[in-house]
Amino acid sequence: MKLSVAAELALRGVFVLADKNGEDPVSLDVICSARDLPRDYLAKIFGSLVRADLIIPVRGKHGGYRLARDPARITVLEIVEAVEGPVVLNFCQHDPPKCEEYDCPMRPVWSELQEMIRGKLSSMTIADCVGERKH
Amino acid sequence: MKLSVAAELALRGVFVLADKNGEDPVSLDVICSARDLPRDYLAKIFGSLVRADLIIPVRGKHGGYRLARDPARITVLEIVEAVEGPVVLNFCQHDPPKCEEYDCPMRPVWSELQEMIRGKLSSMTIADCVGERKH
Repeated sequence: MKLSVAAELALRGVFVLADKNGEDPVSLDVICSARDLPRDYLAKIFGSLVRADLIIPVRGKHGGYRLARDPARITVLEIVEAVEGPVVLNFCQHDPPKCEEYDCPMRPVWSELQEMIRGKLSSMTIADCVGERKH
Repeated sequence: MKLSVAAELALRGVFVLADKNGEDPVSLDVICSARDLPRDYLAKIFGSLVRADLIIPVRGKHGGYRLARDPARITVLEIVEAVEGPVVLNFCQHDPPKCEEYDCPMRPVWSELQEMIRGKLSSMTIADCVGERKH
């Protein structure tokens, strides 16, 4: 029961973009050195964020990445799900469920837990994270 | 952000033992056919549950496994943690943290989420799961 390493690194990379929001695009090298992130892996992860329209790649000599929207309008859940796919805690939370014990008493527990997690992650925006850090 | 397959299978296997609690030890074959579980993988997973003193292996012709305690005294969290290790959501929740941004505003969010998850899983016992299914 843990956040994937990819989602963890994605968040760290996005925090750097949010710190520098409104400035020039930020290169992968700058992002990686700011938070000690592995370059090749982050490039792949950022590909997922580009496809999810959360960050924008900018080509050219001074290219790099920037956020696609104001950081106050990007939630932590969006970043996590862009990288991991939908937060689906276990077999029985798939749609349709990958388990046929439809009356299993664990099912409502997993459902509640999953909603708690999604609710918490969607209540936090990237601006919340970065804004507070700047103070 | 998901439960490991190993923990999911462990719970299903333990539910079978709880269904047959008070009867003879249950063989791996019976457990696996009851819930359509992969035999070799479950044998390995049950090894973890034995080492955690949650189930007891019984040798011999009519051997198998039985719960080490009353199912009302085994929590879902104990099964999950015996298989996955401690529920540690991400880098910053390790002790000591695997991240040096000690003032990161995400840290309390992860801590709260982790406590919510552990609280929920420790509030459910195996008896809760099986008892309700029998009605």
